[in-house]
Amino acid sequence: MTSPVETPHPVTGLDDVVHQRVRLGILTIAHEARRVEFGFLRTQLELTAGNLSQHLSVLEAAGLVEVEKGYAGKRGRTWITLTAAGDAALAEEIARLKQLIARVETTGGE
Amino acid sequence: MTSPVETPHPVTGLDDVVHQRVRLGILTIAHEARRVEFGFLRTQLELTAGNLSQHLSVLEAAGLVEVEKGYAGKRGRTWITLTAAGDAALAEEIARLKQLIARVETTGGE
Repeated sequence: MTSPVETPHPVTGLDDVVHQRVRLGILTIAHEARRVEFGFLRTQLELTAGNLSQHLSVLEAAGLVEVEKGYAGKRGRTWITLTAAGDAALAEEIARLKQLIARVETTGGE
Repeated sequence: MTSPVETPHPVTGLDDVVHQRVRLGILTIAHEARRVEFGFLRTQLELTAGNLSQHLSVLEAAGLVEVEKGYAGKRGRTWITLTAAGDAALAEEIARLKQLIARVETTGGE
């Protein structure tokens, strides 16, 4: 079988830490504001608190977000901020998705 | 905290069956040809045979690909074909990724 393309496939360059659906959502929302509140992320992404916490831990361990505990009045709040590395990782993901989309749209069936 | 956007976030509409990195690769490669051979997919996506088989099973169970065993000369071969449902699911994924990209590119930091 011959291949029309000899270069590595765009998905081989995708990072699962960033590409995973929920984490991609967290990064894109965090990209839209200086910082976002935990409950806001949970609502926007339709997640349980436990599920969101797990994904935030993965992103925090990779240095892509910072998670801060604080207060809004008397109520505890958790704030999430995209790091410079997180911003770069999101930009890289978007660039690779564009390559993938271009490839899908310029090919298709025989 | 106020939100700039009240509609559901694009990632909430992504399907993990399709969005997962390896499966997205399988679907895009299968989209490029009438059918693709197992070993070709494995090389293109830099996977072990076991890992590729697992992901093909998920896609086959969802009706997005068909997997056929056959022969090329004396050698056994496994061929993968995108179904109409698989083609539609890939198109849906691409449409949502475009929404996501547009959203990332029209916003960003304060």
